[in-house]
Amino acid sequence: MQLGAMQDWSLRVTRFIDHAAREHGGREIVSRWADGSESRTTWAGIRHDAMRMAQKLAKLGIKPGDRVATLAMNHHRHLVTWYGAVGVGGVLHTINPRLFDEQLDYIANHAEDRVMLFDAAFAPIVERMKPRWKTIEHYVCFDSSDPAEHFEDWIATEDGKGEWADGDERDPCMLCYTSGTTGNPKGVLYEHRSTVLHAMTAMTPQVFGMDCRTVALPIVPMFHAASWGLPWAGAAAGAKFVYSAVNEASVLCELMEREKVTTSAGVPTVWLSLLQHIDAQGKDIPADLHTVVCGGSAMPRAMIQRFMKAGRRVAHAWGMTETSPIGTTGTETSNWDELSFDEQVTIKAMQGRVPFGVELRCVDLDDYSKVLPRDGKSSGALQVRGPWVVGRYFKAENPATDADNWFDTGDVAVLHPDGTLQLTDRTKDVIKSGGEWISSVELENAAIGFPGVAEAAAIGVYHPRWDERPLLVVVKKPGADVCPDALREYLGTHVAKWWLPDAVAFVDEIPHTGTGKISKKDLRDQFRDWQWSA
Amino acid sequence: MQLGAMQDWSLRVTRFIDHAAREHGGREIVSRWADGSESRTTWAGIRHDAMRMAQKLAKLGIKPGDRVATLAMNHHRHLVTWYGAVGVGGVLHTINPRLFDEQLDYIANHAEDRVMLFDAAFAPIVERMKPRWKTIEHYVCFDSSDPAEHFEDWIATEDGKGEWADGDERDPCMLCYTSGTTGNPKGVLYEHRSTVLHAMTAMTPQVFGMDCRTVALPIVPMFHAASWGLPWAGAAAGAKFVYSAVNEASVLCELMEREKVTTSAGVPTVWLSLLQHIDAQGKDIPADLHTVVCGGSAMPRAMIQRFMKAGRRVAHAWGMTETSPIGTTGTETSNWDELSFDEQVTIKAMQGRVPFGVELRCVDLDDYSKVLPRDGKSSGALQVRGPWVVGRYFKAENPATDADNWFDTGDVAVLHPDGTLQLTDRTKDVIKSGGEWISSVELENAAIGFPGVAEAAAIGVYHPRWDERPLLVVVKKPGADVCPDALREYLGTHVAKWWLPDAVAFVDEIPHTGTGKISKKDLRDQFRDWQWSA
Ligand SMILES: Nc1ncnc2c1ncn2[C@@H]1O[C@H](COP(=O)(O)OP(=O)(O)OP(=O)(O)O)[C@@H](O)[C@H]1O
Ligand SMILES: Nc1ncnc2c1ncn2[C@@H]1O[C@H](COP(=O)(O)OP(=O)(O)OP(=O)(O)O)[C@@H](O)[C@H]1O
Ligand SMILES: [Mg+2]
Ligand SMILES: [Mg+2]
Repeated sequence: MQLGAMQDWSLRVTRFIDHAAREHGGREIVSRWADGSESRTTWAGIRHDAMRMAQKLAKLGIKPGDRVATLAMNHHRHLVTWYGAVGVGGVLHTINPRLFDEQLDYIANHAEDRVMLFDAAFAPIVERMKPRWKTIEHYVCFDSSDPAEHFEDWIATEDGKGEWADGDERDPCMLCYTSGTTGNPKGVLYEHRSTVLHAMTAMTPQVFGMDCRTVALPIVPMFHAASWGLPWAGAAAGAKFVYSAVNEASVLCELMEREKVTTSAGVPTVWLSLLQHIDAQGKDIPADLHTVVCGGSAMPRAMIQRFMKAGRRVAHAWGMTETSPIGTTGTETSNWDELSFDEQVTIKAMQGRVPFGVELRCVDLDDYSKVLPRDGKSSGALQVRGPWVVGRYFKAENPATDADNWFDTGDVAVLHPDGTLQLTDRTKDVIKSGGEWISSVELENAAIGFPGVAEAAAIGVYHPRWDERPLLVVVKKPGADVCPDALREYLGTHVAKWWLPDAVAFVDEIPHTGTGKISKKDLRDQFRDWQWSA
Repeated sequence: MQLGAMQDWSLRVTRFIDHAAREHGGREIVSRWADGSESRTTWAGIRHDAMRMAQKLAKLGIKPGDRVATLAMNHHRHLVTWYGAVGVGGVLHTINPRLFDEQLDYIANHAEDRVMLFDAAFAPIVERMKPRWKTIEHYVCFDSSDPAEHFEDWIATEDGKGEWADGDERDPCMLCYTSGTTGNPKGVLYEHRSTVLHAMTAMTPQVFGMDCRTVALPIVPMFHAASWGLPWAGAAAGAKFVYSAVNEASVLCELMEREKVTTSAGVPTVWLSLLQHIDAQGKDIPADLHTVVCGGSAMPRAMIQRFMKAGRRVAHAWGMTETSPIGTTGTETSNWDELSFDEQVTIKAMQGRVPFGVELRCVDLDDYSKVLPRDGKSSGALQVRGPWVVGRYFKAENPATDADNWFDTGDVAVLHPDGTLQLTDRTKDVIKSGGEWISSVELENAAIGFPGVAEAAAIGVYHPRWDERPLLVVVKKPGADVCPDALREYLGTHVAKWWLPDAVAFVDEIPHTGTGKISKKDLRDQFRDWQWSA
């Protein structure tokens, strides 16, 4: 017997909803549906419905560990489903409806989903995929009784007076697949424990800084990297949620203003369209919005400046499905007030620093056994480890990490002496020329600043002498004319001479993945037979 | 084999110092010593010294689980000791030097401490107690080489290049005894896991709201309830610490101003003396101090008003050694901005709400099986449970909780519908008259408002008819005259008629415990033979 003891208390995600319902039961959850209608419930209401859903799932024979899938936008019934699925001991599997059919096929079958809850808007996908989805036994529709049973009718048979399934804190609670930018999406099986630790971290000031006064509008979809963990952290904090099933800037702005949204999180493109809308309407950034979290891809400097000038707090975050997803956040440094505005923007334009729990290192791209110094110069393969980092992919036989738990992110980065992460590329996209590395991302960032360039992507193409040389693929703005030599000359003022692309290829469209990232994989296929002119 | 997995990552407190040294290595730790001298080190320096101390302890044969005691004020070498003791796998035991000799005797022997590190200021205690402390083999002095080996010389033999002892996350890391207000102090054995979860919670905005910009001056001593967990949370956040080995208001103010302290925590009496000093000097509250955390006993309304009027954030906290100690914090409610100033003060004057993890309930004082409603009226015995709440006291054979993990706090409280805790008394002090309960604390709070009353304590004394009736024990202000009838009349405007003390006894001094709380136990002994006049 130990000499004394603290209490046994398993880290289970159902504790979030119990806490929210008990301590913040009246705090609202607002949903704005695709048809423009709105509904309001509370944390107590969410818990009651989630319990009814868990009871329903139990009756259908859903057992601990079974996967319950969703194909849906952000709204309170989706939130209910998060807690209902884990409440029966199941594993919530949020599927990205923007994926291509082959991916949707692969993912749902690979996950062996048994139940599928979906938005009426995605009924066509369901109709199309049904014959290919071999394991799904039950279909439920969130917002209509036409394509399948209506969610509210489905849970109406239950009384909400059950108990959550109990189990080990290392049990799985959620399954998320990666975006599939570099290949087939990979499944990451989050555990109760990892999710609780991640949510506790998400509440700290370095990350979202949430408490019961927070009014959060997560633009990031609930199907993308666990909505950055917000549905869990928001319950733990007792925050109010404002959900929108559409991502139109006008709707988001209206909701932010009316519901006094304080905190929002999304990828750069949605923030961009929000700012464009505001400008077009001659409006201001919503008054109460004090924390702007942005990640998924790099936040442009101009956007950072814009928000900071308006007195808003920018948290530029890096993460990935494999890190639950919080990896780093670009919040303020300890000497913040002594920095000039430009210096502050420069820091925010990088991907920030780790919270307690996460550890980073960079290793040499040519020799992974060589750990690089944090000197703000050496760029290498970024590796990460920590309590909410993947250990082994779903159904994988081998660990996703080395023996010391280092997970290779597939990102290329520089680490600064104070630990600040600066992402420069992906290992699959970085271009190797004569044994030296060229960042495709830096070339693209520079190119986008040239008049007439709408979108640009740099890829490495085989070169008989240098092994690979950069090819810049460019989409011109409508009606614009772009002179390749002038563009190269302009690039020369931003990057080293030997980085300059040997050629510029103009295309009508650059291929994108289901989540809207540039698909370099497809682009490389497209230009596989490219011949450099002599 | 599970289908997938997140990483194994044990919740060990040594991770805090690794994180702080790696990610915030240059962040300063300032110490102001008793003799007025100052020293400055960094988180990297703390880690290096702690590692040297762990190496030293290992050489002395200190094994995992062994207790390493301190008898010291706040300074960076004390902080080094926290991490050095746990670094070898040992259990840090911080002893309160203000305890009485019998308690010091009892505690150190009960803990079976093997090493004692102490401040030169407490050398007399060490000299006096040495013959009675049977298990201590090594004495080390923090700030002098006279009474024992100097700490710096002691660790100077080591190179700091070792590794922390590893172990289970449920291993103990720290031993704290309660203040001994109601009896002999009881030992609470904190675990690595409970301490990590507690610290992660301490960083959230609802509690201390700490990140790397925080400059914390913990007035609460490192020997009192684990200094409210700040030495752990501060490292996890990468905060700067400013320590003072003396609690003189002038010194604290000067440090707060010069070092730009943002966050400070202490019991009401120190905040009171700080405010008195400021008034006497015609100064302002230090400019950067934005978060004032106060707990240990109730924070007076006037003090709350004062800080709030000055635009500072008040976090009135309730906790106990048995809860690590964070139980509740009186931070802002979700409707904060809609409240009047007075309503805000009223909320802050209560003890606040639980963060995620902690759960509270009140049970009937006469029938503990009856759970009371959260109605803002029913007062009862306060019970608590959660991951950082005691399960079994040090060396106790029986659990400190019931079968459902409820720990009885010994406090009497009312819970409001929104979960706000309002402490009214201690179960041992509440007075039972004719089957009904009278709050001794409310009587005292009222009495203290009467002119001429310096200090007041209400105790229940045997009464042939009512079982117990309140006796008010009063210390008059120097030279003042207090008329018992006028005092009773005044009390009648604050509490129910049947609560009025049947008699007022004037004394020169009210007995206090080693930590400065009124000792009702001693007072009851003193008035055991009190005879009510007919
Ligand atoms: N702030 C950021 N700046 C730049 N890139 C980012 C940022 N945040 C995330 N990323 C990129 O997004 C990646 C994580 O995305 P996600 O997990 O959604 O799938 P993916 O990596 O795009 O797809 P797959 O792993 O299937 O190829 C990171 O590895 C990184 O390349
Ligand atoms: N904000 C507060 N307002 C009123 N009382 C408080 C507050 N915070 C703490 N307390 C009191 O302090 C107690 C915890 O103190 P601590 O653990 O230091 O030992 P103690 O209870 O005084 O001593 P012992 O348990 O040995 O009798 C609580 O149980 C409560 O009575
Ligand atoms: Mg990826
Ligand atoms: Mg106590």
